[in-house]
Amino acid sequence: MARVVVDVMLKTEILDPQGEAVLGALPRLGVTDVSSVRIGRRVEIEFDENASNVEEQSRVIADKLLANPVIENFTIAVEESVETGAEHA
Amino acid sequence: MARVVVDVMLKTEILDPQGEAVLGALPRLGVTDVSSVRIGRRVEIEFDENASNVEEQSRVIADKLLANPVIENFTIAVEESVETGAEHA
Repeated sequence: MARVVVDVMLKTEILDPQGEAVLGALPRLGVTDVSSVRIGRRVEIEFDENASNVEEQSRVIADKLLANPVIENFTIAVEESVETGAEHA
Repeated sequence: MARVVVDVMLKTEILDPQGEAVLGALPRLGVTDVSSVRIGRRVEIEFDENASNVEEQSRVIADKLLANPVIENFTIAVEESVETGAEHA
């Protein structure tokens, strides 16, 4: 089973109000040495075991469905085996 | 300048309607071998050069501001140097 991770982020020249809001709230947490916060989407796509052209298909999905190319960039990362990773419950 | 990436995803047992919607739209794109789509948030935090305890501070930010621990997990990755990566314009 191949897992593909598509990260969709606003282009750097596009204002990110959500990130600005988080940045503005940090001093209340005692965090004062952050210069920038940007918030985007992380999309995890799991393909069937016998799927082919996984990266190519993911590019089509990202391009047509996940990202708005006018204001967003995306990156695609293929992880051949599904791993659980170190998660914080 | 240290960049920290916080990925916030719904816990696996929580229904993800946004991901389900994307999954349901895939056949129209001719993609039929995807078994699951999950959509979460990717948060990029850039710390000042002289910032210390970057991972610890990021954990506080994620815990108090970015994730809802009842329904979401988060992972933290510290990238010491800021890199542009392979982005698709």
